[in-house]
Amino acid sequence: MTPDNRIALCPGSYDPVTNGHLDVIARASVMFDRVIVAVVNQSVRKSTTLFNAEERVAMVRNATSSLGNVEVETFSTLVVDFARAKGAKAIVKGLRAISDFEYELEMTQLNRRQAPDIESIYLMASDKYSFVRSSGVKELATFGGDVQELVPDEVARALKERLGR
Amino acid sequence: MTPDNRIALCPGSYDPVTNGHLDVIARASVMFDRVIVAVVNQSVRKSTTLFNAEERVAMVRNATSSLGNVEVETFSTLVVDFARAKGAKAIVKGLRAISDFEYELEMTQLNRRQAPDIESIYLMASDKYSFVRSSGVKELATFGGDVQELVPDEVARALKERLGR
Amino acid sequence: MTPDNRIALCPGSYDPVTNGHLDVIARASVMFDRVIVAVVNQSVRKSTTLFNAEERVAMVRNATSSLGNVEVETFSTLVVDFARAKGAKAIVKGLRAISDFEYELEMTQLNRRQAPDIESIYLMASDKYSFVRSSGVKELATFGGDVQELVPDEVARALKERLGR
Amino acid sequence: MTPDNRIALCPGSYDPVTNGHLDVIARASVMFDRVIVAVVNQSVRKSTTLFNAEERVAMVRNATSSLGNVEVETFSTLVVDFARAKGAKAIVKGLRAISDFEYELEMTQLNRRQAPDIESIYLMASDKYSFVRSSGVKELATFGGDVQELVPDEVARALKERLGR
Amino acid sequence: MTPDNRIALCPGSYDPVTNGHLDVIARASVMFDRVIVAVVNQSVRKSTTLFNAEERVAMVRNATSSLGNVEVETFSTLVVDFARAKGAKAIVKGLRAISDFEYELEMTQLNRRQAPDIESIYLMASDKYSFVRSSGVKELATFGGDVQELVPDEVARALKERLGR
Amino acid sequence: MTPDNRIALCPGSYDPVTNGHLDVIARASVMFDRVIVAVVNQSVRKSTTLFNAEERVAMVRNATSSLGNVEVETFSTLVVDFARAKGAKAIVKGLRAISDFEYELEMTQLNRRQAPDIESIYLMASDKYSFVRSSGVKELATFGGDVQELVPDEVARALKERLGR
Repeated sequence: MTPDNRIALCPGSYDPVTNGHLDVIARASVMFDRVIVAVVNQSVRKSTTLFNAEERVAMVRNATSSLGNVEVETFSTLVVDFARAKGAKAIVKGLRAISDFEYELEMTQLNRRQAPDIESIYLMASDKYSFVRSSGVKELATFGGDVQELVPDEVARALKERLGR
Repeated sequence: MTPDNRIALCPGSYDPVTNGHLDVIARASVMFDRVIVAVVNQSVRKSTTLFNAEERVAMVRNATSSLGNVEVETFSTLVVDFARAKGAKAIVKGLRAISDFEYELEMTQLNRRQAPDIESIYLMASDKYSFVRSSGVKELATFGGDVQELVPDEVARALKERLGR
Repeated sequence: MTPDNRIALCPGSYDPVTNGHLDVIARASVMFDRVIVAVVNQSVRKSTTLFNAEERVAMVRNATSSLGNVEVETFSTLVVDFARAKGAKAIVKGLRAISDFEYELEMTQLNRRQAPDIESIYLMASDKYSFVRSSGVKELATFGGDVQELVPDEVARALKERLGR
Repeated sequence: MTPDNRIALCPGSYDPVTNGHLDVIARASVMFDRVIVAVVNQSVRKSTTLFNAEERVAMVRNATSSLGNVEVETFSTLVVDFARAKGAKAIVKGLRAISDFEYELEMTQLNRRQAPDIESIYLMASDKYSFVRSSGVKELATFGGDVQELVPDEVARALKERLGR
Repeated sequence: MTPDNRIALCPGSYDPVTNGHLDVIARASVMFDRVIVAVVNQSVRKSTTLFNAEERVAMVRNATSSLGNVEVETFSTLVVDFARAKGAKAIVKGLRAISDFEYELEMTQLNRRQAPDIESIYLMASDKYSFVRSSGVKELATFGGDVQELVPDEVARALKERLGR
Repeated sequence: MTPDNRIALCPGSYDPVTNGHLDVIARASVMFDRVIVAVVNQSVRKSTTLFNAEERVAMVRNATSSLGNVEVETFSTLVVDFARAKGAKAIVKGLRAISDFEYELEMTQLNRRQAPDIESIYLMASDKYSFVRSSGVKELATFGGDVQELVPDEVARALKERLGR
């Protein structure tokens, strides 16, 4: 990481972005000169997302518009390849739970083999967001639960429109 | 973290420093302008260490002498208070196991309340050091086990002298 | 919870009900005046169950017929909304494993935000049922394994009929 | 549990009582007619506490004085024996972390063998208290950290007096 | 296990076989007279595998050809039934992570009920393979990652052919 | 492991031996020609045990007297060194819980470095013993709890004599 240009990548599906994601992105934006939020282009992985890549990018962009050093892009490659392409030396992720930890430990070891020069760093989720997971938010919204405190307003509206009954 | 002077704190007991600790310190030294290894002065906490604070500091210093931006100091206060006193905005620690994770999650939440401006960041232990813990190294050395691959040579000698039978 | 009418909800998919579920329901029925077993109507959630809601309700009903204060119903809403609709102030669930614990911790925090007046309480699974999970029972039955000790007789027969080869 | 007199026991060391403990006690006091906070008399177990049993009882009593159905007592026996002596059919405890879960699962199985008629029930710690542990509070206080949000005022003062430097 | 003929079963999907699997098989082949690698015939379980059973068997066979006492077969029954059919008294599996542990603990208890005479034994994954999982390898290969150190050469080639872009 | 003489080591403190230990030893004695129960001589490690090494050995010996191929010895060295001295190629241990798993994973990796030719193998604790731990048994006995189902009769008597009030 050259001192004059420190870039971090925050990869994820963001389907949709939650306040927990935004907390990690904001904290990364304080530590790094530039933060690139890297939204997985799910169409490549063939799994199904509720929102398509363009919608997910737009929601993250709106929610991070007040952070001057945050950009949002999609990617369809290995995370470490995208990091390298963007000149990022660090991948920043949040840790919420034991199951996160095990998965991330595994990913870090695999990624290090692919790209030993790219460091994965982890931030512990804030206590008030430690229970917020995109899948839980979508389940809540499906059954008419209140997701106001869990996601940005725009996302809450989009969820209601897409899933509400 | 001002771009011109990014300082990280690597706190611990380092009783004694292991190759796992050194891996984390070296990785932190790539990411930050300055790394301060903060050695807990156990005499304050009244718990018993095998090596006293001066010995532990000396061992870390020797083992990190090739890293130009690493300093070693003792401290007898809250970690966040020491971080603030040194101008460090980040506390860097390694994560090896689930039990580490739970303890660190708790510490991060407590520390954030004391000092919301200081970020705790975590690096996953390298796979080849994930099983190295100071207490395990001391137990091995007590029974004449080979600790050469687990700690620096100087530490291996010190352990043999102090614990060997 | 008014002393004159304490109602607990035991929500789940019950696809099919196991002896582990029945152990939790029976223990809840001792602690509360009324227990409502709330069977998730999977057709709403669009995931596939082996038995339809009517079949699952019937199996729970038969298996709990000796417990005078237990009723069985389906629901298609948020658990907390169903609890409120039924006047239940407590949601009772069993905990078998670490993975249960993490999921339930998350659900409890989400539910509390939706309905702070409804308490989630947990009972540790009895040791002899701690390894019984509906999915494991179905897998066993698919390959002709003996499920007699894991589920009520009626359920064992239904599994054999539906899955047996 | 007879409907006319439901008693719960909340056992612990309470050295000292934290806001996390008080949250569990308050939630138990809503669910049960009477709650008996059972403070372990450490002098019997020969382990060292910061506050003696009388001090710990007094702190819990003051902190729960607004809850009309909560009493505080010390005990020097098995938890289940004390529960039986007091006519309590339920032991209520908070769960904060995986390590809590494993320990409690073990205790529940052991206790059930001693007293099958006494049920152990668990409440998930509120997210804002999930990182509060008596030992962490004492460590913080030892180094002059701010414990105001973690314990009642009286306890904060007592910690400062006992541990402050 | 009669001393004259000790047989172990190593069951799994092997979709595809990894160096982690091979490490466990090799260690089992030292401890037992014969090792039967039992490849799940997924067509029975109706879940989708990347390689069909014949391909998976062939890959394991090639990778274990230097181990004189290892055979490879498919099976479509309960693991314990297949073990009994082959005269194996032990099922040998690797343990890599907490999530493995919980799942295996559950399976062992279920299997013991079906076949109390068949013992499940576990080997801890070697540190250098603890992060290797078939699903991770396939994900890496899908995005052009380097899987050379994670699987045998033949498997790396097959993955590239099947998944490469 | 030569087919003509397979020896397993079952190391532990056995302070005192429990029915859970005995279950693992019995299962090992079926799989191996000889089983050596290796009792840690705590006087060397300077930690405090309730029973001294001779007492602990005697209790294991009595409890395993019906198993013809089980011997009991004390040791004061590294486990792997003792295994090698006795010609044992396998160390057999029980796994009861996540915390066991993490500790054993660490020990296995350390031991493998000391002695790559000695394999550590793990048996999952039987469900009915998964909550039995020597420390829990001693705590129960201290407060007059019933330990009859948890330890052999002789051990129950010794505990009562040593700890009873």
